[in-house]
Amino acid sequence: MRKIKLIIAYDGTNYSGWQRQNNAITVEEVVTKAVKSVFQKEIEVVGASRTDAGVHAYGQVATISIESELSTEKIIGAINAYMPEDIRIHEIEEVPEDFHPRFAAKMKTYEYTIVNNTYLMPQKRLYAHFMRRKLDVVLMQAGANHLIGEHDFKSFCSIKTSSNSTVRTIYDINVKKVDDTIIIQVTGNAFLYNMIRIIAGTLIEVGYGRLVPDDVKFILEQCDRQKARKTAPAKGLTLMKIEY
Amino acid sequence: MRKIKLIIAYDGTNYSGWQRQNNAITVEEVVTKAVKSVFQKEIEVVGASRTDAGVHAYGQVATISIESELSTEKIIGAINAYMPEDIRIHEIEEVPEDFHPRFAAKMKTYEYTIVNNTYLMPQKRLYAHFMRRKLDVVLMQAGANHLIGEHDFKSFCSIKTSSNSTVRTIYDINVKKVDDTIIIQVTGNAFLYNMIRIIAGTLIEVGYGRLVPDDVKFILEQCDRQKARKTAPAKGLTLMKIEY
Repeated sequence: MRKIKLIIAYDGTNYSGWQRQNNAITVEEVVTKAVKSVFQKEIEVVGASRTDAGVHAYGQVATISIESELSTEKIIGAINAYMPEDIRIHEIEEVPEDFHPRFAAKMKTYEYTIVNNTYLMPQKRLYAHFMRRKLDVVLMQAGANHLIGEHDFKSFCSIKTSSNSTVRTIYDINVKKVDDTIIIQVTGNAFLYNMIRIIAGTLIEVGYGRLVPDDVKFILEQCDRQKARKTAPAKGLTLMKIEY
Repeated sequence: MRKIKLIIAYDGTNYSGWQRQNNAITVEEVVTKAVKSVFQKEIEVVGASRTDAGVHAYGQVATISIESELSTEKIIGAINAYMPEDIRIHEIEEVPEDFHPRFAAKMKTYEYTIVNNTYLMPQKRLYAHFMRRKLDVVLMQAGANHLIGEHDFKSFCSIKTSSNSTVRTIYDINVKKVDDTIIIQVTGNAFLYNMIRIIAGTLIEVGYGRLVPDDVKFILEQCDRQKARKTAPAKGLTLMKIEY
């Protein structure tokens, strides 16, 4: 058996997230069907991150175990040929048989994108949250700095989470502005359900001046989802990369 | 009466081009309807460029003549509110009453975008033509250089053109590559029907080595559409700006 690691990009607009579910089309399902078409048998596709409905990816990771001797290059082309253009495998690599894409992940990087202008360029509309009122990125960065490190992120986690522990480590958060676009880049060891979208929604309030940066520290310490702010929309979020 | 110049961006994916036609939704029609909703009367929207079906824009220009005393800022917001997210007015300016967006245009810049890689990132799929085989941008630029200047571009014009003269001036063509993306940037005084897409289709053949750069000069001199190569797909083309 060969274990193959797939790096997958997708436009999440038309999908109910990564993970398979009944009565909704998910990315995992489309990839699984394409893999079946190529290898002519049921093969489990094991993903690294359960991205929410509408969330995008450049660097989702998944593995398949196959017996075929097809070259990795041919596998990319063959699976892609069975998928719509909004999902693309762009890298592929052989990994040891005991490699698990979720458990072996050391760091994940997500970006939350906000267009802060009087209008949203049509070409960016699917990949950014639009905010007309001016946001102060210096304040947002100051607020974000309180989240760096190992913390209990219960305040920044959907109450629908199924995780036993809500302790996670954020290695870095950068809030940068390029032209009219603000990007909140977050790198951590793992993330809770809706965690980055709740962080984004809270930092937006800091950017507006409705919260001061130190409020983020207070919210974190309360361990109460009610203290943080709204979950920012899914379409602004992209899973950038997973490191092992 | 006030004459107002609108600068309009759109994702052309779902439109049959700019110009109004029967049995098809066009950008002009959507803008005209939104203008009517704002000012509560029929107002003619005069566009600068008749972009083809599927072609995108950052800097389409159109004018309207109005009697309203609404500020330009409020006009942008009001018209945008009546349009879908894939069309956005992003600048607005008062102009003299005799200003005509098409006749007064001095220079137009278009970009033709090609992703040249083994895969097309989903997030770029609507705005780029995908070519798997490696293109040589140095050869493409050498071929493009023959087109700079005032020439009869009959070879690079759809036979369906309605123009009397096929003489146009290209001020500059730049072929540049950034990561996996090749952009052919063309600035000229005006363009014929399908002209940039036929230029792109021909330069692609040069990039593949099926034509040599000097063949572009020969094709130009023949004044025969049959001599040039295929019209490249609409989705790779974007109207960037119009200068007056």
